[in-house]
Amino acid sequence: MKHARVSCYGQIFEAIETEGKLKLSDGRIVEQKDVVFLAPIEAGTIFALGLNYADHANEISFKAPEEPLVFLKGPNSLIGHNGLTRRPKGVETMHYECELAVVIGKKARHVKREDAYEYISGYTIANDYAIRDYLENYYRPNLAVKNRDTLTPIGPWFVDKEDINDPMNLRLYTYVNGEIKQEGSTKDMVFDIPFLIEYLSSFMTLNEHDIILTGTPKGTVNVVEGDEVIVGIEGLGELKNTIVGDEAFAR
Amino acid sequence: MKHARVSCYGQIFEAIETEGKLKLSDGRIVEQKDVVFLAPIEAGTIFALGLNYADHANEISFKAPEEPLVFLKGPNSLIGHNGLTRRPKGVETMHYECELAVVIGKKARHVKREDAYEYISGYTIANDYAIRDYLENYYRPNLAVKNRDTLTPIGPWFVDKEDINDPMNLRLYTYVNGEIKQEGSTKDMVFDIPFLIEYLSSFMTLNEHDIILTGTPKGTVNVVEGDEVIVGIEGLGELKNTIVGDEAFAR
Repeated sequence: MKHARVSCYGQIFEAIETEGKLKLSDGRIVEQKDVVFLAPIEAGTIFALGLNYADHANEISFKAPEEPLVFLKGPNSLIGHNGLTRRPKGVETMHYECELAVVIGKKARHVKREDAYEYISGYTIANDYAIRDYLENYYRPNLAVKNRDTLTPIGPWFVDKEDINDPMNLRLYTYVNGEIKQEGSTKDMVFDIPFLIEYLSSFMTLNEHDIILTGTPKGTVNVVEGDEVIVGIEGLGELKNTIVGDEAFAR
Repeated sequence: MKHARVSCYGQIFEAIETEGKLKLSDGRIVEQKDVVFLAPIEAGTIFALGLNYADHANEISFKAPEEPLVFLKGPNSLIGHNGLTRRPKGVETMHYECELAVVIGKKARHVKREDAYEYISGYTIANDYAIRDYLENYYRPNLAVKNRDTLTPIGPWFVDKEDINDPMNLRLYTYVNGEIKQEGSTKDMVFDIPFLIEYLSSFMTLNEHDIILTGTPKGTVNVVEGDEVIVGIEGLGELKNTIVGDEAFAR
């Protein structure tokens, strides 16, 4: 099932997708265009992977890492489907990054890789934008690169684990203004999902609603004001957002 | 006023300090020894500063940075006053770090330094432990250095802003097993509190209950199993915890 969190009628609702429309938790059916999509999960800790696809590491002149490169993101960076992402004035390079987002379903500590999927509740799509101008270190990007408000569109759907047959074999793709720019498969991750859960839970507790953004494949290009960016993953739908300038925000 | 969050009588209470005891939100007075202290704030995003005291940067062979070095921490790392901090087996170097923790009181965006204190609700103490063995990069330590469970004791008190006359002139100190090991003053921060709020809010939104750990002065030494560590800050009290081995935890 595809779950969303949406704002409409002045309230926030849980909703499920039904024949292209949304069924709100109170039973009403509404059109997708009549709601504001929020992040589909109230996120706990947000983990993000750097350089987790060898072709992308190569594209930006790195070899694939020997250990997962994980950094944290703040919830301030999240926006929902159809949201606006801010490209600060004067920036030279801003990249989208289509990523499979894994949602943790229960407390996880010292999980073995063969048990990892038991701790997952489902999946969504994240677009883990990066403002490359501020990057001094690919391994753990600083907050000005990755943590600005609106830099992490996520959604539209939280999809139950049971609905995804093999999360390690899903097509990912990005369209910018209708042209395909990025394509890959989750099978090309350097560190796969079970490994990431084993690794993280070996030294810290993962909790329900923690989210792991699993990295992006080759094909990141610069986006500019006015661009419409769609990141999609097989079985999870498509997450759209639009790049806007500073003037779209009050400050 | 000094506020705490404590567990007792099988419940979680807000409490205030009164003549060395605790007054629970339901009016009962209890001894401090009869409660379990929790983190005094339900933390939002936790920011931590690297190398924000020149003497400490020098101590670990770095010059002070030209821009704030900020990384994020997960709430999994937090424990309360009197808690147990885990020193993983086989680790060579584990350092305490006594730090003034600044708590944000309301949404902050594009704040000027002269207005910064308006956005602060109060202060607490954090001990921002580091497992140096895993450190490859001082600027943005990886999760195995800073983000393990129990590596961030915090508290005991959330102290209202109005009770602290000058947060940029407070003595900080650390005792290990009753011996003083670290001493400094918040006046020696490289980037002071108003600067940090101006800096962070220039590119992202700070929200109520976000916490900024402002870095530690010179005097970090290795701690081992059995050590009792007390970090204190003038006007904020003392935060105690004990270093324990893996066997103190179920796994």
